[in-house]
Amino acid sequence: MNIREAKVTDMKSVLNLITELAVFEKEPDAVEVTEAYLINAGFSKNPEFKCFVAEVSNEIIGMALVFTRFSTWKGTVLHLEDLIVNQKFRGQGIGAALLDSVVNYGKCLGVKRISWEVLDWNTDAIKFYQQRGANILDTWRVVHLNENGINNYNTQ
Amino acid sequence: MNIREAKVTDMKSVLNLITELAVFEKEPDAVEVTEAYLINAGFSKNPEFKCFVAEVSNEIIGMALVFTRFSTWKGTVLHLEDLIVNQKFRGQGIGAALLDSVVNYGKCLGVKRISWEVLDWNTDAIKFYQQRGANILDTWRVVHLNENGINNYNTQ
Repeated sequence: MNIREAKVTDMKSVLNLITELAVFEKEPDAVEVTEAYLINAGFSKNPEFKCFVAEVSNEIIGMALVFTRFSTWKGTVLHLEDLIVNQKFRGQGIGAALLDSVVNYGKCLGVKRISWEVLDWNTDAIKFYQQRGANILDTWRVVHLNENGINNYNTQ
Repeated sequence: MNIREAKVTDMKSVLNLITELAVFEKEPDAVEVTEAYLINAGFSKNPEFKCFVAEVSNEIIGMALVFTRFSTWKGTVLHLEDLIVNQKFRGQGIGAALLDSVVNYGKCLGVKRISWEVLDWNTDAIKFYQQRGANILDTWRVVHLNENGINNYNTQ
């Protein structure tokens, strides 16, 4: 198993993993990005993300997608948007290896925080993250104004 | 009251507001950024954020700080990192005017989502966001690996 930075030609497999995760998270229809969109966003002059992939026998079986964001408390921080391992390859340390790559990347950047989000019923993931030293912020809630909410936003 | 884009010279007032919010959120020592850091991050060639300020009689009494981030489901989305109104000026619609500016900016960018975070005990804020069409995602939790966790990260 090899962890490396993703290439343009990996984006088809990466999109498959994104869709697999959306099904696991009970939102199978939520994925609106396409392979072309990922290529354009990730490999342009000012890429919007960096992606690491886990490869076994030339097959992409896991990925971690990150970008920097700005914290008004800590300055530039790293955000882990997705950490996905194909169902068939779980429990073999591949997710851990991907997270290790992300933390190592954050260390190289010198950021003071790496953030991500987890579903409260995904207890295996929560336990894994806590073992690695992460804190689950129980009192914070994520807020979304979705596309419909933006278009129908009423300033009242 | 006037809402406008922030200038370099507003960053001192913006930092004061950031510190005020940290005190309200019971983390008075969490703010590590400086005025110079904000200026460098927000007004360089590739700015890390965009900031709107609310001004009354040449005084900055509120701010909203945003940046784009990447969703593997929705593509480029807008994230509202902070929405702050000085304690003395609350309840006068200034927060609403700032949020309106943020949503309008998101609409101009054509994003499919605007996201932010709120403390679960800040019921006034939650009510306000819901009235404006936002959804509070009850099952998602924010995860932080802090500076200490990054530096002492053990790949095991």
